[in-house]
Amino acid sequence: MSAPKATGTMIDAERLWTSLMDLARVGATPKGGVRRITLTDADRQGRDLFVRWAREAGLTLRTDEVGNIFARRPGSDPAALPVVIGSHLDTQPSGGKFDGAYGVMAGLEVVRTLNDDGIATRAPIEIVSWTNEEGSRFVPVMMGSGVFAGVFRAELALAAKDGDGIRAGDALKRIGFAGEGGAHPIDAYFEAHIEQGPVLEETRTTIGVVQGALGQRWFDVRFTGQDAHAGPTPMDLRRDALIAASRLVLEVNRIARTYPDYARGTVGHMQVRPNSRNVVPGEVQMSVDLRNANDATLRAMAQDLGTTAQALADECQVEAVVQEVVYFPPCHFAPDLVDSVRECAQALGLRHCDIVSGAAHDAVYLARVAPTAMVFVPCEGGISHNELESARPEDLAAGCNVLLRAVLARAGVREADAR
Amino acid sequence: MSAPKATGTMIDAERLWTSLMDLARVGATPKGGVRRITLTDADRQGRDLFVRWAREAGLTLRTDEVGNIFARRPGSDPAALPVVIGSHLDTQPSGGKFDGAYGVMAGLEVVRTLNDDGIATRAPIEIVSWTNEEGSRFVPVMMGSGVFAGVFRAELALAAKDGDGIRAGDALKRIGFAGEGGAHPIDAYFEAHIEQGPVLEETRTTIGVVQGALGQRWFDVRFTGQDAHAGPTPMDLRRDALIAASRLVLEVNRIARTYPDYARGTVGHMQVRPNSRNVVPGEVQMSVDLRNANDATLRAMAQDLGTTAQALADECQVEAVVQEVVYFPPCHFAPDLVDSVRECAQALGLRHCDIVSGAAHDAVYLARVAPTAMVFVPCEGGISHNELESARPEDLAAGCNVLLRAVLARAGVREADAR
Repeated sequence: MSAPKATGTMIDAERLWTSLMDLARVGATPKGGVRRITLTDADRQGRDLFVRWAREAGLTLRTDEVGNIFARRPGSDPAALPVVIGSHLDTQPSGGKFDGAYGVMAGLEVVRTLNDDGIATRAPIEIVSWTNEEGSRFVPVMMGSGVFAGVFRAELALAAKDGDGIRAGDALKRIGFAGEGGAHPIDAYFEAHIEQGPVLEETRTTIGVVQGALGQRWFDVRFTGQDAHAGPTPMDLRRDALIAASRLVLEVNRIARTYPDYARGTVGHMQVRPNSRNVVPGEVQMSVDLRNANDATLRAMAQDLGTTAQALADECQVEAVVQEVVYFPPCHFAPDLVDSVRECAQALGLRHCDIVSGAAHDAVYLARVAPTAMVFVPCEGGISHNELESARPEDLAAGCNVLLRAVLARAGVREADAR
Repeated sequence: MSAPKATGTMIDAERLWTSLMDLARVGATPKGGVRRITLTDADRQGRDLFVRWAREAGLTLRTDEVGNIFARRPGSDPAALPVVIGSHLDTQPSGGKFDGAYGVMAGLEVVRTLNDDGIATRAPIEIVSWTNEEGSRFVPVMMGSGVFAGVFRAELALAAKDGDGIRAGDALKRIGFAGEGGAHPIDAYFEAHIEQGPVLEETRTTIGVVQGALGQRWFDVRFTGQDAHAGPTPMDLRRDALIAASRLVLEVNRIARTYPDYARGTVGHMQVRPNSRNVVPGEVQMSVDLRNANDATLRAMAQDLGTTAQALADECQVEAVVQEVVYFPPCHFAPDLVDSVRECAQALGLRHCDIVSGAAHDAVYLARVAPTAMVFVPCEGGISHNELESARPEDLAAGCNVLLRAVLARAGVREADAR
């Protein structure tokens, strides 16, 4: 082992950008976004393109039982475990060109660069595309990485049904990506990603050195009152579920704004019933998403939510049911890998800062089974999960160069290639 | 003209109830409600049943160009205009057995009673079933009575399309109820209806003497902010449309509770976009329904709504568009008919009170072209537009007896029949 030859090696920014734009044509929407919902025909086309590019780069393909695709570049040390780089190719229903796609294409660009420069690494390098990170069609989210990390079993993931009652396993077979076998041991995991938030852009920072991810607690809340005709029912005789729900929206906002440790709170989904203009709503189903970097603070926020929802229900004479549906504890990435990412950004003279990911990523699951780190780059207006999602070619290239260096530092290079 | 023979004439409570229950089998739902959406096969079957019963009662049928069905019992005075009794046979998608059906069946019961007792009236009596009162499939609501009263033209009504793009005119032809001709002059209009609110039941009152109907102003409100990922977007950098919408829900409630003159305010419909659990909502579309017995107060409420929505939008850094989509001025029924209804309830020894209808009814349009009155009876829990809608046979019979008396007082009886 020695210092990597890569001090002089840089990725091809234009090739990275072209690959991203070519990939974005798969499932392209009229407004410039991408609709490549997991395990659909569009997802298959995206996967096919990645597989073709990986083969062209000389990589060996393997698809596991939940459709995760691994593209392997061998290392010089037969005993070494692979250093894995990746993310996901599926998008939200109205998604953008970069969320997920950037991490996979950055991995491909790292390998292409090593090929061009004839650099052999000691450890193998694998690019991975995880199945169904977004979770918009099949729950659980981060399905592929969750199975890989042993968070839940493959059978459970494949049994998930979409809104039309189609099983994930059947959808996977239909697109031809139902492989075999489960997880294999890995040495480390790196994921490059757009920030999906506004912090880097606001602070004019190119590289986010990701410390970990906020913990999350997701809730389903249902308020049940009584449908009533909007005209003949005096205000005092109503049991309006939407009044309680609206008050809870504001209370979630209050909780997120008053607790410390990067507290966030969102009501993103609300279903009013019967949802008719002239009927007092008898039922509202809503989601609450609470996030925090500190597990104890997150727990306190959740308790506040529960108490508040019940108090509102009593005041509004409706019933409240609060059910926790998802819990991710706060995640802390491997300090040595995080330090390495920071040093690589520093060495490249890039403006960088430490940051905590507000979103979950496949990396959050991978961190449970291997040393893990992430590299964030800015995206325009912090906008993501949106057709307007945008990132600058130079920022994407900078993040990919940091990734290249950090991966080489971890994988090591053959003595012959070291300078 | 003389005092009606009807001092001794009473309707057949059991026959009225049986007719209502027989009719309720047309479009019956498993939960005990009725789904007889306008101009569907179920509506046709309901109309067919009414037509059969009307023929059996010796009435002469006429269907006009928008499918309103008139069933006429001749009077002794060839020059007299008809006294009309009616309501509608269509229901909400999840409707009940009584809303609308009661008014038509009560009309039928009045005529059957006159037949049984051999009472001839001076003026003809007509039972009417108005097309598409509910408006849940085709807009405008109260379509048939609206055309009859000259509120809008038949061509406009027939050109209305449902969610599948089917024209009302085509649907009407398909069920075989596209007749000919428009409105004819009438002497007066009476409509019996369940209250659809809780006031009569709460005050243990059998007969509501309806003074008129609340004016209504309906609005579509759209708040537009910016979709953002719920995790990575700090609270201060959000433009959350649902925060503004939730605050407006509470402001509508405040408006309805602070203005005088039977003020009511309801947000019954809300559509959150993209309505995804982990996306800060970038858009909310919502309805606002304001009602008041006083037109000037209603106008002030509407102005308050507009000002408040804009102020909230500014505070929440979102855009607001407030569009008025429906305006019904408050309606005042004919004082002499209203007095007559009160006197008939009094004469029958029924507990009664003056009441203002919170809902619009066909009677509201009829009041524009003829002296009009309504008779309300209690419904269980004030519940309507719901499969649980329920009313007691004795209350329905009481309302029908009041109707019979009031109709006879207006139509007059042949000298020979007077006692």
